Amino acid sequence: MSHDLGTPVPVRAPRGTTLTARSWQTEAPLRMLMNNLDPEVAERPDDLVVYGGTGRAARDWPSYHAIVRTLTTLADDETLLVQSGKPVGVLRTHEWAPRVLIANSNLVGDWATWPEFRRLEAQGLTMYGQMTAGSWIYIGAQGILQGTYETLAAVAAKRFGGTLAGTLTLTGGCGGMGGAQPLAVTLNGGVCLVVDVDRSRLERRVRERYLDEVADSLDDAVRRVESARTEKRALSVGVVGNSASVVPELLRRGVAVDVVTDQTSAHDPLSYLPVGVSVEEWHDYAAAKPEEFTDRARESMARHVEGMVGFLDAGAEVFDYGNSIRDEARRGGFDRAFDFPGFVPAYIRPLFARGKGPFRWAALSGDPRDIAATDKAVLDLFPDDDHLHRWIRAAQERVAFQGLPARICWLGHGERDRAGLAFNDLVASGEVSAPVVIGRDHLDAGSVASPYRETEGMADGSDAIADWPLLNALTAASSGATWVSLHHGGGVGMGRSIHAGQVSVADGTDLAAQKLARVLSNDPGLGVLRHVDAGYDDAAAAAARGGLRVPMLE
Amino acid sequence: MSHDLGTPVPVRAPRGTTLTARSWQTEAPLRMLMNNLDPEVAERPDDLVVYGGTGRAARDWPSYHAIVRTLTTLADDETLLVQSGKPVGVLRTHEWAPRVLIANSNLVGDWATWPEFRRLEAQGLTMYGQMTAGSWIYIGAQGILQGTYETLAAVAAKRFGGTLAGTLTLTGGCGGMGGAQPLAVTLNGGVCLVVDVDRSRLERRVRERYLDEVADSLDDAVRRVESARTEKRALSVGVVGNSASVVPELLRRGVAVDVVTDQTSAHDPLSYLPVGVSVEEWHDYAAAKPEEFTDRARESMARHVEGMVGFLDAGAEVFDYGNSIRDEARRGGFDRAFDFPGFVPAYIRPLFARGKGPFRWAALSGDPRDIAATDKAVLDLFPDDDHLHRWIRAAQERVAFQGLPARICWLGHGERDRAGLAFNDLVASGEVSAPVVIGRDHLDAGSVASPYRETEGMADGSDAIADWPLLNALTAASSGATWVSLHHGGGVGMGRSIHAGQVSVADGTDLAAQKLARVLSNDPGLGVLRHVDAGYDDAAAAAARGGLRVPMLE
Ligand SMILES: NC(=O)c1ccc[n+]([C@@H]2O[C@H](COP(=O)([O-])OP(=O)(O)OC[C@H]3O[C@@H](n4cnc5c(N)ncnc54)[C@H](O)[C@@H]3O)[C@@H](O)[C@H]2O)c1
Ligand SMILES: NC(=O)c1ccc[n+]([C@@H]2O[C@H](COP(=O)([O-])OP(=O)(O)OC[C@H]3O[C@@H](n4cnc5c(N)ncnc54)[C@H](O)[C@@H]3O)[C@@H](O)[C@H]2O)c1
Repeated sequence: MSHDLGTPVPVRAPRGTTLTARSWQTEAPLRMLMNNLDPEVAERPDDLVVYGGTGRAARDWPSYHAIVRTLTTLADDETLLVQSGKPVGVLRTHEWAPRVLIANSNLVGDWATWPEFRRLEAQGLTMYGQMTAGSWIYIGAQGILQGTYETLAAVAAKRFGGTLAGTLTLTGGCGGMGGAQPLAVTLNGGVCLVVDVDRSRLERRVRERYLDEVADSLDDAVRRVESARTEKRALSVGVVGNSASVVPELLRRGVAVDVVTDQTSAHDPLSYLPVGVSVEEWHDYAAAKPEEFTDRARESMARHVEGMVGFLDAGAEVFDYGNSIRDEARRGGFDRAFDFPGFVPAYIRPLFARGKGPFRWAALSGDPRDIAATDKAVLDLFPDDDHLHRWIRAAQERVAFQGLPARICWLGHGERDRAGLAFNDLVASGEVSAPVVIGRDHLDAGSVASPYRETEGMADGSDAIADWPLLNALTAASSGATWVSLHHGGGVGMGRSIHAGQVSVADGTDLAAQKLARVLSNDPGLGVLRHVDAGYDDAAAAAARGGLRVPMLE
Repeated sequence: MSHDLGTPVPVRAPRGTTLTARSWQTEAPLRMLMNNLDPEVAERPDDLVVYGGTGRAARDWPSYHAIVRTLTTLADDETLLVQSGKPVGVLRTHEWAPRVLIANSNLVGDWATWPEFRRLEAQGLTMYGQMTAGSWIYIGAQGILQGTYETLAAVAAKRFGGTLAGTLTLTGGCGGMGGAQPLAVTLNGGVCLVVDVDRSRLERRVRERYLDEVADSLDDAVRRVESARTEKRALSVGVVGNSASVVPELLRRGVAVDVVTDQTSAHDPLSYLPVGVSVEEWHDYAAAKPEEFTDRARESMARHVEGMVGFLDAGAEVFDYGNSIRDEARRGGFDRAFDFPGFVPAYIRPLFARGKGPFRWAALSGDPRDIAATDKAVLDLFPDDDHLHRWIRAAQERVAFQGLPARICWLGHGERDRAGLAFNDLVASGEVSAPVVIGRDHLDAGSVASPYRETEGMADGSDAIADWPLLNALTAASSGATWVSLHHGGGVGMGRSIHAGQVSVADGTDLAAQKLARVLSNDPGLGVLRHVDAGYDDAAAAAARGGLRVPMLE
């Protein structure tokens, strides 16, 4: 049995300054929900799938329509409740309260497994929200591009003197998130070889200018990347193939690979194609025999990760890029799967300790000039941050907007609130033509518990403690966010993560300014506090600089 | 290794109308935290254990002092964050926001087990919050007495023509919660035999007038309860013994038992004494060999539950009283453990569908006359509710206050807000001498996901869906509650439940009235919505009566 999603409709957010809802506080979630399902943005809009395997924006089409209907009439002292993509009630709250509260995919611990989740999903009782799909703040591949750019810059800094020029990065998966990898490598000057079983994924990224070219065969691909590496020329090449055979094969051939990672949808074994199964058979087979498929996928992942460990032994920089492939490979019988680290402890933790993390915004007007104005505001606010300037300029040049124009960069505690207030001023003065929404990925300093990714290897061993994302969501709801979400299983899959998000609207009012000042300070502030509590010195210094009160230290 | 709790101090909440903190909004959580640790209230105050196994009010003594210190200085637009009993930060929020946000004992799903929890607890990284221990709204045995009174009244209505007169109820566990059972039975006119391994627990309940007498031996106990049953005389008798041997023994002897249940601390195998281990050996043995102890406890529980199923076969009314003993017995190898139901599907679900659940309040003044005034207000508000009147009068007569005077009764959606506003008026007019806090157990209609207890056997199969308690906490935070809590593992143990609570302060101000009107309507309202979504007709009717908007039905 599978839940009937209803009849798809084409969705595109309204543009311009005419309200569909009663105010910008409700227009904003309405447009962003629609934007998540815009065919320019979503991976499979007819199935309401936005990205990351089966990350959905709404449970089904009737739920989608009911959410739209409700947001259109919702008052500024009412709150809509969304339970795994389905609107379940409207309650009277107050002006400072969020307009939408969202809880997606959450299961009680002993039941937090894929088989149980799928059983409930098939009955229409839940949906998978990933991180920003079910929380209506996915903005296309740019989001992950920024994260990937940051990560690869950190790899370059750690191992290759600050640039990837003259290095080859091997990775797999060119989907919604993974498709950002080739461009992130070339922006850092390097050569990238990306493997995907599905040719259409590679071709899409070529069209979007995220991937330079698709090779005709593995031999052809190797030739192209080897010469670019020798010539220290930035280049990205896609090749159709299964990583579980291509990675070991490249190792066998002794190809000189400097960096190895992966972004296949390994977090959900049904979304990882086992060796010996064709792309055409995939969907029906997985649906018909999920357990057998899972076993075969895990066996393939074991071979895939074995190849990655082979490159590690050969001296390459190898890391898990947040898809839980190590744990799946372990279950598939490979016992050295955890020999290489996750990307967070390896590169991101020092940023998190300072509350530095993803900050994204979208122009509700639909006008790219509004993003240009906000880009300028950010550059002006932080004139000495070279890294930030390099990114924004690269993004302006290389990133094609998908859906509503949007931007992302990483900012820290004490920076995000300043940017938010600057945007609110631009809206108030009319320099930006309509309100701007400001949100972030759930992957942030204080908003996630995910022992195979964001909280892997915490200094105090608190990896699995899940109080923090709950406090994060409660804090956002208590600080003036416009919508707040609490999800389970994003990124690394069921049973492995709990995480929260918030989105706030800069509508140019004084009330919005008061809310933004609090939300955009408290949200990364909690990230700093989480790391102070875990014993990071950088975090203690950041707390002191940022004037954060730590009761145990008073 | 075990976490050092620091040096205990005797704790008692301040009484009267002089503020220790800066306002009643912060004085209230301060006094209630202290009240939870008052030796009159807490089971083991030196260890900060309030009730229910190891349910704590604060992580350790340094954390306790830091919370007190922080609440004393907290402003009315600041919010204190508490992570598993430890204060981790203070953030600037606003007047409508909660003053304290609490997340206790939460673990990521795959790590949500007792061994992992204990490992983290021993490192000082978490604590067990139970339901109202870590959320500072435990009020002693009265809380559970009311719930037990309601449940046994429902048993009487279902099987015995509305009274327990002439029936014998057999149960085990006379601790913090379980100690309410004998009085709840006698208030319903019946005879109760309660078994506990620890004589001091039985004697304490005799002192508190919850238990009538302690027998000298099992033979003596059987004689006493059999003659009371024959004479249709209300009587409660305690006997020292291990339920895992006493229950099968009574079955073997063919004692005529009408109702069987249990409230030993089965949810945590280390808190259930196996047969063959003495009370004196218990603590050291469990600490030294937790795995061996767990195995032995589960074997004993299997025998215990086998005896309960024997009584079921013999025609008795048998139910699991929310301690997860069925699942532990199943793990202990007894495969008929789930032959009898949990008390919620058996008796409580119809109440939950109408948003009816626990409503409790405490007089911050410490003056019992304040409770008398609020009792009167409740009786006046609902003049036709005989059941409520009978309970309040019985409670006035039989319940000795523990710590700050407090009261509990069950009220539905559309009732709780009216009671809260009436209390606020009494505070405003001075008829009640100081503010009153209004909260509830986490065991409520829309605030918990717990497939072996509150959400067992939901009509649509949504037992394990955990979105609802998260939405509940977010709603409370968005509606004006004074403190909000989100816990894992309460009642039934790690991996088995997620649940939320809220406490609001009626300080007599107009702002408090606005907040109470929203919180006390939205909180049970969400309970109704949860049951509407699950397909309960009673809930749909209650939603219509209460004017709750259900988007999917519009
Ligand atoms: N690091 C991060 O910050 C981060 C953030 C979000 C998600 N993720 C994780 O990254 C993974 C990828 O996400 P996505 O949105 O790109 O998913 P996606 O489903 O859109 O794309 C996955 C791609 O992998 C390909 N693929 C599947 N099996 C393969 C195989 N055996 N060999 C080669 N290619 C194969 C698919 O054809 C598809 O193109 C997910 O597990 C996601 O949870 C990571
Ligand atoms: N039904 C509900 O509404 C509800 C609410 C809260 C808690 N609970 C559950 O009820 C249980 C009891 O809670 P509590 O606060 O009374 O716990 P507690 O630890 O205070 O008391 C448990 C009692 O059981 C006794 N005991 C232990 N092993 C025994 C054995 N083998 N035979 C006989 N007696 C034994 C102990 O001596 C102790 O007196 C817990 O599992 C709790 O989670 C139920």
